[in-house]
Formats: sequence, C-alpha cells, structure tokens
Amino acid sequence: MTANTDIHQENSFFPGRLDLRTPINDLLSRRWSPRAFSDRPVEPPKLVRLFEAARWSPSSVNDQPWRFVVATKEDAGTYAHLFSLLSESNRRWASRAPLLVLGLTRTTFSRNGRPNRHSFYDLGQAVAFLSVEAEGLGLAVHQMGGFDEERANGLLAIPPDYEPVIILAIGYTDRPESLPDDLRQREMTPRSRQPLESIVFTDAWEKPSRHVDPHVTGLSDHSSTK
Amino acid sequence: MTANTDIHQENSFFPGRLDLRTPINDLLSRRWSPRAFSDRPVEPPKLVRLFEAARWSPSSVNDQPWRFVVATKEDAGTYAHLFSLLSESNRRWASRAPLLVLGLTRTTFSRNGRPNRHSFYDLGQAVAFLSVEAEGLGLAVHQMGGFDEERANGLLAIPPDYEPVIILAIGYTDRPESLPDDLRQREMTPRSRQPLESIVFTDAWEKPSRHVDPHVTGLSDHSSTK
Repeated sequence: MTANTDIHQENSFFPGRLDLRTPINDLLSRRWSPRAFSDRPVEPPKLVRLFEAARWSPSSVNDQPWRFVVATKEDAGTYAHLFSLLSESNRRWASRAPLLVLGLTRTTFSRNGRPNRHSFYDLGQAVAFLSVEAEGLGLAVHQMGGFDEERANGLLAIPPDYEPVIILAIGYTDRPESLPDDLRQREMTPRSRQPLESIVFTDAWEKPSRHVDPHVTGLSDHSSTK
Repeated sequence: MTANTDIHQENSFFPGRLDLRTPINDLLSRRWSPRAFSDRPVEPPKLVRLFEAARWSPSSVNDQPWRFVVATKEDAGTYAHLFSLLSESNRRWASRAPLLVLGLTRTTFSRNGRPNRHSFYDLGQAVAFLSVEAEGLGLAVHQMGGFDEERANGLLAIPPDYEPVIILAIGYTDRPESLPDDLRQREMTPRSRQPLESIVFTDAWEKPSRHVDPHVTGLSDHSSTK
C-alpha cells in the first residue's frame, strides 16, 4: 500500500494559500470544493478506492450506517435521477461532474432498530475519508446539502430507516475561467475559517484552551502565509 | 507544508491486515481505535495541528458548527471533568490517554438560528480530519459515543444551541500486553467491515453498483491480503 500524495496535476488550480496557523497534512490543506469540473472521467480503480476509503471509516459500535448511490455519466438513468434532485444553483455547475454520489445514513442501529444518535456523524466521517482519498488521487469533491430530500425518498425508494443526507460531485478540476462570471469569482475566493480560539475551549465555555492561545503557542493565524 | 505520512513509531502495534479490496492511503488504512495508550504526552505543536486539521474541514454553508473542549493531564480539572463523563467500560482504559477531547456541535445555523440538519455530519467530518492528521503524526484516536450527555450539559455549562456528541481519547499507543486480559483480546481482533456491495448501490435500493461488483472489477475483498 502506498500513499499517493504527490499525484496532483501540475496545472490544477488551487484558490490561494490558507491562513494556516501551523502546517497540516497536504491531503487536508489542499482539499477544497471546486465548481469547475473537467469532463475527464474518473478511472474505475480510483472510483473503487473512494468507497474503500469510506468503508474503513470508524462508526458507533461499528454499525457502518453509511450507504451510497453512485452514478457516472455512463449510468445515465441513475445520473439523471441524482442530478434532478439538486437545487437550481447547484445544477448550474454540477452537470459537468463526471461522478455524482448520494450519501445516505441508517438512522437506527441495524442490530436492534433503536435510534442511532451518531448516524449523521458517522456518515460525515465516511465522506471525509472518501474526500481525503480523493485528494490523494488528484480528484476533488464538492458536497451539496441543498437537494430535494423528499423527492429522493420517493424516486430512489429509500427505506424508512434511511435518510438521504448529501450529494457529492466528484471529478478532476478545470480552470476557473471555464465557469460563468459570478461562479468564477466564488471559485477564486480564498477559503476562510474561524480562528482556533473560537472553537477550542477549556471547560469554561468559549474560554480558549491555552493549547491554542497564540500568546502561549507563539503561533498566529498568519504565521505560515508570510 | 509537508505530508508526514512516514513517522509511525517502528514498534507501534497494528491489529493485523485489513480485508482491503484495493489499496487506500496509508493514513486511512492504518488508522484504528486502540485502548492501550502510552503515558507519553502529546507534544504541544502536534496538539495544535490536530485542531488546525479539524478547522479546515468543510461544512454546510461554511458554518463550522464544531467546538472542542480539550484537556491534557496537566489541565487536571478539565481532564477530570471530561473523564467523569465516560461510561464505566470506557473509564477502564481511557484514563491512560494523555489527551481527552469533547466534540460538540451547534445544532442551529449561527447566521439565523434555524436548525442545521448537517450539524452532526459536519462535526463527524472535522473529527475525521483530526484523526487523519493524528495518524500522520504517529498518534491514535479512540472515539467514544458512550458518555453522560446530560451531565456534560450541566458540568460544562453548554449553551442550549450546542450538543455534546463525542469524546476522543488521543495519544501514542502502547503494547496490547499492557491491557487487562479481556481488553487485550479485543485490542488484537482484526478490524472488519461490510463488503462494498452492501453499501454502494445503483438507484435500485440495495442493488450493488457495477462499479464495485467484484465480477466486473475483478477485485475481491481479499485481493490484498494474500
């Protein structure tokens, strides 16, 4: 098994440096959610790897609640079904993605039918693993929460114990110039996040942990972008 | 920024080969959830990297609902609080972990207070990113859904818009022999997952996608373990 961390296309676009406080693994820092997808298909062995990665994600009592409905453009019927669920704004660009994936989760434990409080959480982890694997393969993933869940339930005959949660557009990126003007602007906007002090606390709520306090660590939000 | 994928300790224990259908990134395939933690502390720069990784996870409309309460053993009060929330069975081994983290999520959007259907999902992704970064740093993460949420709300004065979701034990691994007999057996049990055909479908529910059909791909569940 080898880690394929260095097979990014030379000419792939990346929307600027991040305000990283400290370097993190390239697979995480390079990941982003493009709208400009190339029509280059996802090679079958890579497609299998994406789901193999999701499969080995951890889950509550190893119940593995995640399920995926998958379509390339060659799976024309399934692709059309998934595409038809998307919001208007997502349909503007997602039609170029060579691979669409609906992520679902089982909201009850398979062993006893009781509610699984971590079912959405576990699906999130599985998709994160898929996204990390994608990044290593030179692929990009754009997640969309905006789609018609009710229609999905009927169209795909989803059983009552399952909920459709997310639709993923997956493929190789294209240049931002290939997008309409307004989307091109969004594509080139640097990614932003709240500072660590706003999310990592000690046991007094919203009091930043000393472990991420810039005055203690000597690391500021812009230390790596100078 | 460098990818630290090769800094595993030479003597770290790994519970056997996986039934991988196809190789995936080492950071994902090597990740597991140990109970035998060493008392070696987590170095401060590594601790910051864990949360920096979580911070750059994607989220619904970039709302970043994740929050973390963090304690090393030097943060004795916070550590005791988090530890006291754990179930009896988790307390048996988690006391050795040098770092405990409570993961919480904001269940409403910060911009308008409406329910965020993806709040648990987004926290799951952030913790997955943290776990991938940990693996690259030679650290292991064991996630625990079994803890007293009600008590957490009171003890940590968690605001109504937030829910405590998961507690993480993080540290360097120790040999399985350091555990009591029954836990040692569990520690050495190989990890298992459902086959891909059970989780990756076409748009007919539970009909496996041709993309993961072993008869089509030529890949079986044991292809990499021969």
